[in-house]
Amino acid sequence: MSGRLDVVGIGPGDAALITPAATAALAAAEALYGYGPYLARVPERAGQLRHPTDNREEMDRAAAALDAAVAGARVAMVTGGDPGVFAMAAAVCEAIDHGKPAWRAVELGVHPGITAMLALAARAGAPLGHDFCAISLSDNLKPWPVVEQRLAAAAGAGFAIALYNPISRARPWQLGAAFACLAQHLPPETPVIFGHAVARAAEQVVIVTLAEAASQPASMASCIIIGTLHTRIVPRHGQAPLAYTARRLGA
Amino acid sequence: MSGRLDVVGIGPGDAALITPAATAALAAAEALYGYGPYLARVPERAGQLRHPTDNREEMDRAAAALDAAVAGARVAMVTGGDPGVFAMAAAVCEAIDHGKPAWRAVELGVHPGITAMLALAARAGAPLGHDFCAISLSDNLKPWPVVEQRLAAAAGAGFAIALYNPISRARPWQLGAAFACLAQHLPPETPVIFGHAVARAAEQVVIVTLAEAASQPASMASCIIIGTLHTRIVPRHGQAPLAYTARRLGA
Repeated sequence: MSGRLDVVGIGPGDAALITPAATAALAAAEALYGYGPYLARVPERAGQLRHPTDNREEMDRAAAALDAAVAGARVAMVTGGDPGVFAMAAAVCEAIDHGKPAWRAVELGVHPGITAMLALAARAGAPLGHDFCAISLSDNLKPWPVVEQRLAAAAGAGFAIALYNPISRARPWQLGAAFACLAQHLPPETPVIFGHAVARAAEQVVIVTLAEAASQPASMASCIIIGTLHTRIVPRHGQAPLAYTARRLGA
Repeated sequence: MSGRLDVVGIGPGDAALITPAATAALAAAEALYGYGPYLARVPERAGQLRHPTDNREEMDRAAAALDAAVAGARVAMVTGGDPGVFAMAAAVCEAIDHGKPAWRAVELGVHPGITAMLALAARAGAPLGHDFCAISLSDNLKPWPVVEQRLAAAAGAGFAIALYNPISRARPWQLGAAFACLAQHLPPETPVIFGHAVARAAEQVVIVTLAEAASQPASMASCIIIGTLHTRIVPRHGQAPLAYTARRLGA
């Protein structure tokens, strides 16, 4: 008899942003799989095995978890944010699609979580308050010209844009190229919101203009939101400014 | 001394999808504001006032909550899903931007929640597994040609698309027009995932093709995800099929 695999989103970092459904799925698992730093956020439980893996071993990790489930175990795959947003749910589905026939018999659950752009948007106000999109700047899995084409299409059509995976040691120039691409479609005063380690101890949220964006520091822990022509900054006395995208066009 | 306003996302419906941070913010409030059906999902607490309003009174609702906070109360605005996604956070920011100067002194917290598209994506597999966007089909606040322009831009550039506010009594034809628009940019076999009342008792998830989509029932409780050229359906024996969007282009 086949076991079960739960793919569990643990949100951006703060334990108060993990849903009770996710907490329950993690507690019920006999073994946890996932990228080491995400596993480290889950409280240890006696008797529960842990299989931390490197960031880039996604298909191997999915295969190991599915094999364990086929063998009858109840296992969980831990992912930061939401499992369906540039995370492990698609990798697990892909493994099931292309892998061993027995994997299709595994009972699969996916547990949504608070994804980075929504955590950042909540801190800033409501910069995703109207139509928006999410784009990964990683060109490991798609050619860079596709990234630029999507940035241009989104900015040109008036979407707010959340950038995931903006930069890494192996991808040092892509974020600058993205800002240069966006500058061809948006005015230099367009608000850009940088979130670093949102909902973690080192959290920083900084609002700049598109013209200033290229000189801002960013890292793998950053999520970046590009506003639209209708994104406004509201200064407040003694509090951080609010950034929001007006719901009514032309407001 | 000014009070505090928390804008709180309670997710799609299931209490197990409400974050502990949202639960704590609701429990700490002296008064709750919000659309009646969302307020009805929050457990009653002795001494806590409730001010349910109609769906279309968003600015009045924001003003009433901000006035109560200025008067010193700790109040919460309850929204379904995530407050930053086609919900109350932008309306509150807009009120602060254009309203009484005293409103800028109110301490404001926004608490993210599980938004409908992520709850639906989790149920279906990982249809938002690559770049995606969220579009409201409501033309109450933007002209319909802008909606069509955004649908065309998103489909043409390869984004998966989540449709919010697909249909209502006052907007009966827009969803059909959206499918007709998308059919000009996507093949008829493109997967379309309908989620009705996801994470509530009446939940239904149905996967059809774009060619079949116009004849599917939909309501205000629906969220609809349009796949891409790389969205695949994985049949499974004795379980619902999985829908996922491949992470690697051309996979």
